[in-house]
Amino acid sequence: MSLIDLRSDTVTRPTAAMRAAMAAAEVGDDQYGEDPTTNALQRRCAELLGKEAAIWLPSGTMANQVALRVLTRPGDEVVAARECHAAWHEAGGSAANAGVQIVEVGSGGVFDVDELDAAIKPSGLPVFPPTTLLQIENTHNRAGGVVVPQAVVERVCARARERGLKTYLDGARLWNAAVASGRPEAELAAPFDLVGVAFSKGLGAPGGSLLAGPRALIAAADRHRRMLGGAMRQNGIFAAAALHALDRHRERLAEDHHHARRLGEALAGCPGVELDLATVQTNIVVFRLAPGAPDAATLVARARERGVLIVAFGPRTVRAVTHLDVSAAQAEQAAVVLRELLGA
Amino acid sequence: MSLIDLRSDTVTRPTAAMRAAMAAAEVGDDQYGEDPTTNALQRRCAELLGKEAAIWLPSGTMANQVALRVLTRPGDEVVAARECHAAWHEAGGSAANAGVQIVEVGSGGVFDVDELDAAIKPSGLPVFPPTTLLQIENTHNRAGGVVVPQAVVERVCARARERGLKTYLDGARLWNAAVASGRPEAELAAPFDLVGVAFSKGLGAPGGSLLAGPRALIAAADRHRRMLGGAMRQNGIFAAAALHALDRHRERLAEDHHHARRLGEALAGCPGVELDLATVQTNIVVFRLAPGAPDAATLVARARERGVLIVAFGPRTVRAVTHLDVSAAQAEQAAVVLRELLGA
Amino acid sequence: MSLIDLRSDTVTRPTAAMRAAMAAAEVGDDQYGEDPTTNALQRRCAELLGKEAAIWLPSGTMANQVALRVLTRPGDEVVAARECHAAWHEAGGSAANAGVQIVEVGSGGVFDVDELDAAIKPSGLPVFPPTTLLQIENTHNRAGGVVVPQAVVERVCARARERGLKTYLDGARLWNAAVASGRPEAELAAPFDLVGVAFSKGLGAPGGSLLAGPRALIAAADRHRRMLGGAMRQNGIFAAAALHALDRHRERLAEDHHHARRLGEALAGCPGVELDLATVQTNIVVFRLAPGAPDAATLVARARERGVLIVAFGPRTVRAVTHLDVSAAQAEQAAVVLRELLGA
Amino acid sequence: MSLIDLRSDTVTRPTAAMRAAMAAAEVGDDQYGEDPTTNALQRRCAELLGKEAAIWLPSGTMANQVALRVLTRPGDEVVAARECHAAWHEAGGSAANAGVQIVEVGSGGVFDVDELDAAIKPSGLPVFPPTTLLQIENTHNRAGGVVVPQAVVERVCARARERGLKTYLDGARLWNAAVASGRPEAELAAPFDLVGVAFSKGLGAPGGSLLAGPRALIAAADRHRRMLGGAMRQNGIFAAAALHALDRHRERLAEDHHHARRLGEALAGCPGVELDLATVQTNIVVFRLAPGAPDAATLVARARERGVLIVAFGPRTVRAVTHLDVSAAQAEQAAVVLRELLGA
Repeated sequence: MSLIDLRSDTVTRPTAAMRAAMAAAEVGDDQYGEDPTTNALQRRCAELLGKEAAIWLPSGTMANQVALRVLTRPGDEVVAARECHAAWHEAGGSAANAGVQIVEVGSGGVFDVDELDAAIKPSGLPVFPPTTLLQIENTHNRAGGVVVPQAVVERVCARARERGLKTYLDGARLWNAAVASGRPEAELAAPFDLVGVAFSKGLGAPGGSLLAGPRALIAAADRHRRMLGGAMRQNGIFAAAALHALDRHRERLAEDHHHARRLGEALAGCPGVELDLATVQTNIVVFRLAPGAPDAATLVARARERGVLIVAFGPRTVRAVTHLDVSAAQAEQAAVVLRELLGA
Repeated sequence: MSLIDLRSDTVTRPTAAMRAAMAAAEVGDDQYGEDPTTNALQRRCAELLGKEAAIWLPSGTMANQVALRVLTRPGDEVVAARECHAAWHEAGGSAANAGVQIVEVGSGGVFDVDELDAAIKPSGLPVFPPTTLLQIENTHNRAGGVVVPQAVVERVCARARERGLKTYLDGARLWNAAVASGRPEAELAAPFDLVGVAFSKGLGAPGGSLLAGPRALIAAADRHRRMLGGAMRQNGIFAAAALHALDRHRERLAEDHHHARRLGEALAGCPGVELDLATVQTNIVVFRLAPGAPDAATLVARARERGVLIVAFGPRTVRAVTHLDVSAAQAEQAAVVLRELLGA
Repeated sequence: MSLIDLRSDTVTRPTAAMRAAMAAAEVGDDQYGEDPTTNALQRRCAELLGKEAAIWLPSGTMANQVALRVLTRPGDEVVAARECHAAWHEAGGSAANAGVQIVEVGSGGVFDVDELDAAIKPSGLPVFPPTTLLQIENTHNRAGGVVVPQAVVERVCARARERGLKTYLDGARLWNAAVASGRPEAELAAPFDLVGVAFSKGLGAPGGSLLAGPRALIAAADRHRRMLGGAMRQNGIFAAAALHALDRHRERLAEDHHHARRLGEALAGCPGVELDLATVQTNIVVFRLAPGAPDAATLVARARERGVLIVAFGPRTVRAVTHLDVSAAQAEQAAVVLRELLGA
Repeated sequence: MSLIDLRSDTVTRPTAAMRAAMAAAEVGDDQYGEDPTTNALQRRCAELLGKEAAIWLPSGTMANQVALRVLTRPGDEVVAARECHAAWHEAGGSAANAGVQIVEVGSGGVFDVDELDAAIKPSGLPVFPPTTLLQIENTHNRAGGVVVPQAVVERVCARARERGLKTYLDGARLWNAAVASGRPEAELAAPFDLVGVAFSKGLGAPGGSLLAGPRALIAAADRHRRMLGGAMRQNGIFAAAALHALDRHRERLAEDHHHARRLGEALAGCPGVELDLATVQTNIVVFRLAPGAPDAATLVARARERGVLIVAFGPRTVRAVTHLDVSAAQAEQAAVVLRELLGA
């Protein structure tokens, strides 16, 4: 039985063409700034994201952690959407590495100016932690891959600047947001001081992330990248995969979004499934299982027996993700299996 | 005009008798463990709190910060009631000093087993921060000085232990909780690994706090107290004030509670005041000002002109606190002033 | 048997006059900036130290730790004299609290421009830790209370500024350095961005320290003081002792220096004692015990049996300190006892 | 002019065979533990190093930083050889990431039991930082690639265990030490709790490191790897290069050692060159330039003009490293060039 792996878009394996690009990559020692393919990727992404400079990092987690270190000081407070990656999926790094507390606000991955204002601790009183950074995750993973409306992004970032906060965009899946919203990445990134993107998710590269921003912040990011152990050597191998993916795998994200939509529609009608189809905007489907339905662990286990891999996001919450290695037929097949298991 | 200072119970000045006790205190170098009055205070409080050992610290904030360092490791997550002191009033120290993220849950200073369970990140998956500590603040300051019901405390702590969490009681105002609930401090502290208490709030001493717990944890607390710079020398001077306060100022907290109650009743009827009298259980009154009423800053400023000091806890939230230096007549007078200003 | 306690100048007990000053102190809540005696002490010390502003802290360790947090960022490197207090006697706080590495250089508490230059890591290469702070301890405790020659201080600080380093003076015993060198404290502190002084050592107050510097750095110090739990309430009680000590116990440090000198001379001639009398410049005598002589633990234990308390600073190193509570006769008596124990 | 790059053994580019191995690597998502090539590499290295388990990391710096986090707690002190990588070449990470102070001892990369004993701060006194970890770097980079004599390693580690310290081997170039000493890596690693090795140095892989040790410590390392952002996805690509290098590039390190020896002999005779040939044991040559000779920056610049790349390790200290991409003829040619520039 061939598995249909919907656990994450990080499970993709490099295509033959991507492997060929990696095998042919021109490389050098990136700690001396001499890896030509990494340099090319950095220039390319800086341009794509509309920023002065960019720097490669081994993972999206490190991009987020380095951004926190660059933009804050220990004791600062960061406002972010509830269940953001930095608070939930980085092993507690934000407090351990950067000494910051993340204040989670809003719902569904989105919050507006009033929620930002309410979350900023009073300034000028040294008893409160100073709120110094606004962070937005776009698309927002745990909220179901939703795209944060750009009007909201712009309002909230403008307000943040007025209040003296720096701004960071966790764009691990910004490529999906761009395709889904029809806006170029540079437009989505424009309101932010720093933006992070990942190559190992929807783009299908085997690893790597990148931070883009003003030259001075990227120089600071380089220092913190070294301090955390994220500076590598001939990573042109990985950069070549990322460049290949930028050329070949960006537009096709629309297919993943289409597959996710089909899957979402199939699930939305099942008994015990709580799923607002309005949240299924990109390649992620997050749904809740009502009392009466099997719990998440049970559904995950039964689906695995049937060759479909999904993940429990909570006791009664499940996530399924479409990607490069899931064909339309497989997405349909997964929908059939899950509907059966849910008694539809 | 003599001011009626309701900003905090920390503003009290030592009485003549307390000053006499300080002036007569037998002292030694506490860093050598040779301050007899500090040692007496530590023994007395260990007994009062039903723990093996205790250690003096300069402030409630340091008690909380040292407890976090002793009971957690960087990257851990702590579950606490929404708007707890450690997250709101310690200048961001929890993340900066201990490297931990505080997850705020519940409402009104209270949360129950289901909320604890929902807040604990899945264990065994290294991508999530490990949740390793439960913290309860009793009475809970920003929730209006409410006493956390002991049945809830015991349920939640029992569940925490089952889930492998350590437990910490921020009892800066535990003396008020004991008086209000009629339960001895040792009973309130029994479910916890470590408990912190303060002498500079309702008890009226000029400074100082204390952590109590098993001997091994108190030895660890001593190390972290030194590391943070909290080990002092002849602090028998302050310990004498604390011992005096334990003897003379504990039972009288009932008066403060009575004054706060009267003040709360006076305010509850005013137009635009949102105040649930059920929250006024001890010496703190926290109320909200509805749209239409003056905002917090305005009310604070006008009250000051009339000789009544209160504090803004938020844009439309105000706190008033009764204490040793506020007589019954002054509490009544403050009620009159505030009612007038609020148009009652 | 009345003990002669030469372990540290921190063991002094407040005099009757100092107790009277404390008992009469006018106090307020220092977290609101309303403690008049603390404010007076801060103004007085800012002036004495030739700085814009000053802030009270509970201990010399906290003064050092707060200075590190204010003047550095995590990952920075600090150059200081070998065996400085911040590296040896603060429980590891410098790395744990401020995330900095201390590079110890020189000998005898002193280092010059060439040693500073050699210790500064190459700048501009992000692989090296950036060296951002010069710290000098004056007098230097573990080097035997030596006064760092002011010409050296000025040269080294000038060089530090040229190299872009900030400068901090750990002046826990700056009062002794001023008396011994005949230079006012402000002159000794002039080359530094921030200076810390202590009241609980030679001055004989029961506790407390202070940082002085430009207004903006002192405001930052206030924030970090709160974050570490060093902000107290009515600490005018302690500030009154410090003010009293500044008036009455500063000039008399010359007596302590005289007693230490007599003790040093008595010890220098003993068999097995290695002591360079040139290091006995203030109130501290640090000597080594050669093979053949008893080791430090043995000498400490035997001296204690004879009523003289001293401390082991290493397996074969001993420290004795004179202070307010050691009379000339007691210093002579201690010399007699130690000479006998050392077989002179 | 084709450059002869002796700056570091990290500059090697993957061979065609290594590229083929990477292109053919079977991969999976390593964050789910499903990358078969990474798993194979981990098993292979655990066996080679004589440990229960192993974990891949992106860099030697991260291996060292994760080891510090696993084996210490903030405020601890670490004893290591003077100029070790963790103190000098990790951007200040040890204090910033793990909150530890490194105490540098010995000389020439080696220290013995008496120096360890002298460096351990007195235990049981909470004022001193607790010394909890011994770290040895073998071979020691800044000392000129010397192999630490195994008898010394065993004595020092045994003493460390007696004193309650954990032990860590920074074996970024352990492969060189094994070849040079004729001892298997497992024997060199046996005395240590944890050992780190790198694949991107002499072995010539494009990136990656690994920690090996008991299963429980490796599980902890996995958590800290995630927290620092070092967990990647399909890193079987890199693991394949490492496996290839283990098979093909280990024994040939003897050639690099031979080339370095020839280079060392050529330099040792030059005027103004201070070089103890006894230190040239592996693939690194570190030499000092006496006054009169050009300084390091000058020599580096002139050599570059002649097609030979070397690095300044200090104002008058230079390093040259041989590796896979330097042939015997190139090493000879570099020797000729450097001798000319040095006036031999």
